[in-house]
Amino acid sequence: MEFQLDKRLAADTALIADWPLSRVLLMNDARYPWLILVPRRAGASELFDLAPDDRRILGEEIARAGERLKAITGCAKINTGALGNIVAQLHVHIVARLGGDAAWPGPVWGSGPAIPYEAGEMAAFLTRLVNGL
Amino acid sequence: MEFQLDKRLAADTALIADWPLSRVLLMNDARYPWLILVPRRAGASELFDLAPDDRRILGEEIARAGERLKAITGCAKINTGALGNIVAQLHVHIVARLGGDAAWPGPVWGSGPAIPYEAGEMAAFLTRLVNGL
Repeated sequence: MEFQLDKRLAADTALIADWPLSRVLLMNDARYPWLILVPRRAGASELFDLAPDDRRILGEEIARAGERLKAITGCAKINTGALGNIVAQLHVHIVARLGGDAAWPGPVWGSGPAIPYEAGEMAAFLTRLVNGL
Repeated sequence: MEFQLDKRLAADTALIADWPLSRVLLMNDARYPWLILVPRRAGASELFDLAPDDRRILGEEIARAGERLKAITGCAKINTGALGNIVAQLHVHIVARLGGDAAWPGPVWGSGPAIPYEAGEMAAFLTRLVNGL
């Protein structure tokens, strides 16, 4: 079975890059600098569905994404989550939380409808991410 | 600097075990079967604060906790999250989500006040966890 990105994830995001294991996406929600890592492994839904070697690589990719997103945004805290209650395909959220953002200190998930980026704003942020991650 | 469990985490949980890296805790909230893994590394707040070897071990401990909690509870989905917006000490939530639970399909974080276990109920669940994790 070949990996295919879930259609809802595809609809809500823009592509940043393919890393060794994960597809790296930008969530189209201007309220939060928000990445999604999707391991390119068909059928995986839980972290424990991955082989240990893949899990190690995913851990390093999560750390890299978080550390660099923090450097790029100057955020107070990185929030990392793998929920999957709505979209079953294994995906990991990496969200830069700015103290005083719309959901602070609560979680971003379930915090109301996304506010899409304006086109130029998204393009500019994507460029920073492609260069900085 | 020696590891000390954050006082708020200590107040909200019961001890299950010390694994090679993480202290394993049961959240005192009867609404959700909810574990917390706290790597015993002083000063760590973000996943990228850990050394790569520790991160690999944490990844295996997260997988073990999630897989076994799913087996014990028969839940629909495991939710995993490292937020830390309120308690800075690095800690990872592993939550068994039963379709139709109080927050489903939203996140458990910020989903209202915890409902503490009754004493006998917590003791019985702790025994299952000590034996099954």
